Amino acid sequence: MLPESVMRRAREELLDWHGTGLSVMEMSHRSKAFASIAEKAEADLRELLSVPDHYHVLFLQGGASSQFAMVPLNLLGTRGSADYLCTGSWSKKAIAEAQRYCTVNVATTSEADHFTSIRDPGSWQLHADAAFVHYTPNETIHGVEFHRIPETGAVPLVGDFSSTLLSRPLDVSRHGLIYAGAQKNMGPAGLCVVIVRADLITAPRAGTPAMFTYKNHVEARSMYNTPPTYPWYVAGLVFEWLQEQGGLEAMAHRNRRRAEKLYAAIDADAFYHNPVRKESRSWMNVPFTLANSDLDERFIEQAAREGLHELKGHRSVGGMRASLYNGMPDAGVEALIDFMVDFSRRHG
Amino acid sequence: MLPESVMRRAREELLDWHGTGLSVMEMSHRSKAFASIAEKAEADLRELLSVPDHYHVLFLQGGASSQFAMVPLNLLGTRGSADYLCTGSWSKKAIAEAQRYCTVNVATTSEADHFTSIRDPGSWQLHADAAFVHYTPNETIHGVEFHRIPETGAVPLVGDFSSTLLSRPLDVSRHGLIYAGAQKNMGPAGLCVVIVRADLITAPRAGTPAMFTYKNHVEARSMYNTPPTYPWYVAGLVFEWLQEQGGLEAMAHRNRRRAEKLYAAIDADAFYHNPVRKESRSWMNVPFTLANSDLDERFIEQAAREGLHELKGHRSVGGMRASLYNGMPDAGVEALIDFMVDFSRRHG
Repeated sequence: MLPESVMRRAREELLDWHGTGLSVMEMSHRSKAFASIAEKAEADLRELLSVPDHYHVLFLQGGASSQFAMVPLNLLGTRGSADYLCTGSWSKKAIAEAQRYCTVNVATTSEADHFTSIRDPGSWQLHADAAFVHYTPNETIHGVEFHRIPETGAVPLVGDFSSTLLSRPLDVSRHGLIYAGAQKNMGPAGLCVVIVRADLITAPRAGTPAMFTYKNHVEARSMYNTPPTYPWYVAGLVFEWLQEQGGLEAMAHRNRRRAEKLYAAIDADAFYHNPVRKESRSWMNVPFTLANSDLDERFIEQAAREGLHELKGHRSVGGMRASLYNGMPDAGVEALIDFMVDFSRRHG
Repeated sequence: MLPESVMRRAREELLDWHGTGLSVMEMSHRSKAFASIAEKAEADLRELLSVPDHYHVLFLQGGASSQFAMVPLNLLGTRGSADYLCTGSWSKKAIAEAQRYCTVNVATTSEADHFTSIRDPGSWQLHADAAFVHYTPNETIHGVEFHRIPETGAVPLVGDFSSTLLSRPLDVSRHGLIYAGAQKNMGPAGLCVVIVRADLITAPRAGTPAMFTYKNHVEARSMYNTPPTYPWYVAGLVFEWLQEQGGLEAMAHRNRRRAEKLYAAIDADAFYHNPVRKESRSWMNVPFTLANSDLDERFIEQAAREGLHELKGHRSVGGMRASLYNGMPDAGVEALIDFMVDFSRRHG
């Protein structure tokens, strides 16, 4: 979901952006008008996240799935291995792609617990000679989130922030590289933001496609080829909206409160169950099951009639999943909780 | 430029697509609503281009620049070389990327003529054991276009149709693979259409990123990861508009007539010059120079005041360039010709 005010502004400006007579969809990416849109979006994102000056901010295509390959192809350098923290389905996908390019040391995995926890950092097997440590701060399918940034010493930390970037303040300086597909908290699908420490940009592995080479995108300021101009523009509108909301401190306050309220409703009623250990529960994605899974279909149907959509859990875990991304209004969360209380009273 | 009726429809549907209460930008790519948009777009494109059933149609990210690598990575198979026809800047870019993966035999090049012609096919050095023959049907910077499909016998023909797809009917069956960035004739930037003969989809070169592997996108029907949903939707609106216009026969008739009129105006006035040999002139991009290049700035400024934008030629060739993509209304071409006649009268 995108904030309604963002959608309204996109509609107002669709045929004529700022009196130019052109839609953003029609602008050349090399035009002054688009340059001003692109630069403002970058500046606003830098401000929201307090991105230090020695980090590049890239607006790319290909989604997080492309980053699964670009990260090892560009950051391995002369090293042959990287450490990966495995906390759910998205970690596993990142690992599978990285294994094609290097030795992946899985420093921790909670797969034996069905990804319902993040193991204690004291138990992780990190390697001082790893090229980088990769983690997935939020796992959308399992509803598991890191509420502390992993400590990796001198080894650069890389995070797939696709489903949690902009949900709260973030200490970028503790990361070597951050990437995030836009379609959860940032804007429309087709845009992927990468924030990378300048000293990590070196020659990629031989044979890496030019489009998978960070250096090319850095040197061309994300215009190595035609970028996804319209999604970049809408992301810029979302950044402005976030500033109007009070920035990421305000979002964090709101997102924590909403998640706690929903988890409290689940924990208070034996009809509902969330399997994730409390300290690792996600603020963004809340999976839950019903005491009687025969009622799943009915829950989803009745919820849809109340305007509550996209509640079906991923097929790998079943049950339900509520996603509380930034664009979801508070009223949507309240309505879900009310519906759940009512459904449990009628069927529990 | 996109057709105005397409932009108006995009605006009408921006906040609420077909009564769903959702914007297309907010739909999950796995939703029924988006599936119907995606399927209709593919069906309409197949109908417009009469795509045979044994060809896959893919809606990808990364632009033609990604295809420059994906084509050799996926089509080389066990062969070590491919033939490339070099007719301008875009051919050269495709060649540079392919050279990283195989021996590129440049079967013909008109670089010595500054890319103002396409050499006679009888002079081309094609190789029967090439994995494929690559050509660039339209060169946007040099204004050179193939008006006949190259004959390559049993060797699959691959074309970068970025700036000419949908400008006229096309015999897809004579190609092994066609690709086109959407942002010229099809829709917003961030979408790349690939049409590929099914038997050419085999295992890619070792180490090819999963996102650069056609097989993955074919098997997932372009949903291997989150696709660029909004550009895909707008492209679908453009396909419907093309059908309303009478399909590609009608577009060909219109595009040929417009181009001929503009070239006639250039050829009739010694103040203007287009250097391309007549039989290779592009219907889409018409570069031209003024007899006195000191007047270039004035031409561009005065044209802009008449609402005629984006006329500056590429820095590598200088002068002017008029782009006559499908979305440009006839009145725009008329206005340009009128302005040129008037400018020449005043300054020639």
